[in-house]
Amino acid sequence: MVFLCKAGQVTPAQDAAPALFTADVGGGTFRLRHATRADLPAIVQLLADDALGAGRETARDMEPYQRAFEAIEADPNHFLVVGEMLPAGEAIGPVVATFQLSFLPGISRRGAWRSQLEGVRVAASLRSQGIGKLMVGWAIDESRSRGCSLVQLTTHTSRSAAQRFYGQLGFEASHVGMKLEL
Amino acid sequence: MVFLCKAGQVTPAQDAAPALFTADVGGGTFRLRHATRADLPAIVQLLADDALGAGRETARDMEPYQRAFEAIEADPNHFLVVGEMLPAGEAIGPVVATFQLSFLPGISRRGAWRSQLEGVRVAASLRSQGIGKLMVGWAIDESRSRGCSLVQLTTHTSRSAAQRFYGQLGFEASHVGMKLEL
Repeated sequence: MVFLCKAGQVTPAQDAAPALFTADVGGGTFRLRHATRADLPAIVQLLADDALGAGRETARDMEPYQRAFEAIEADPNHFLVVGEMLPAGEAIGPVVATFQLSFLPGISRRGAWRSQLEGVRVAASLRSQGIGKLMVGWAIDESRSRGCSLVQLTTHTSRSAAQRFYGQLGFEASHVGMKLEL
Repeated sequence: MVFLCKAGQVTPAQDAAPALFTADVGGGTFRLRHATRADLPAIVQLLADDALGAGRETARDMEPYQRAFEAIEADPNHFLVVGEMLPAGEAIGPVVATFQLSFLPGISRRGAWRSQLEGVRVAASLRSQGIGKLMVGWAIDESRSRGCSLVQLTTHTSRSAAQRFYGQLGFEASHVGMKLEL
């Protein structure tokens, strides 16, 4: 495995956010933690490095992303999470993965809380090594511990590998996800 | 059209919630407003009177629904809405429709807010009269006025009539909706 430690991806303030979990992955340590404002450039880079995201994201103007970060951070029902890959023996490493987990109240299903995953991304160079499974596994455990009855997400119909991945984790492709752009 | 004014469906405190909009429908007036706690039995009845909801909802224990209502009401990013049908010349009428509209911040799509529809239901006796279109049209307008870039929902793959309905309103069936029950 090659570790890409680009300077721009290394988060300076990572010690401020304690690990949600750590796991040994490919000779290094994968560490999941809440995102800080300093992670935004790396998160946008992960979202943009994607067949669909490439046309939707741009780091040229970070202000909309900063406003969104503030809205997420202000609401305890939304978590923005990043994963770092620490090379063996290192205390810091690049942000290589991200997702958002939201906890939503509702009347349906006997007043069930549900959690929702959005923007799940792993750096292209680190895919197929179990990082996605570790992240979504953590999200499922966290949803259960917060009393959710359901974890849900939508994935574009073109993302067949993602659909297989979530299917292997127990998700059922039971619904059609419909979107209206405004 | 037959108006079903079962006593249990009439909301006593409806005057407390101002109308979000009103429209003439079939000789009466359809009025949309925020739900109150007194609407919960009618909402649960609407959710249960459904091919999928019948096995998921029960009014025998209302306490989980009441807790969910409190969580929704406490968060300004979630609206629980009901629609009443007022017979001509009447100031009150039964709750005949409901949905939840949630406003969700996110980093994706340049920090876009998106809105999400859940639990959209119209009483069986009043379908195909444009009530669903009025409600979802209001939700789209409200989402736009709150700065959302996207309105989204998931609908079970078996609900082909719902998929046609949302398609006619401009929603694209671009995604697969995946759910994991906990």
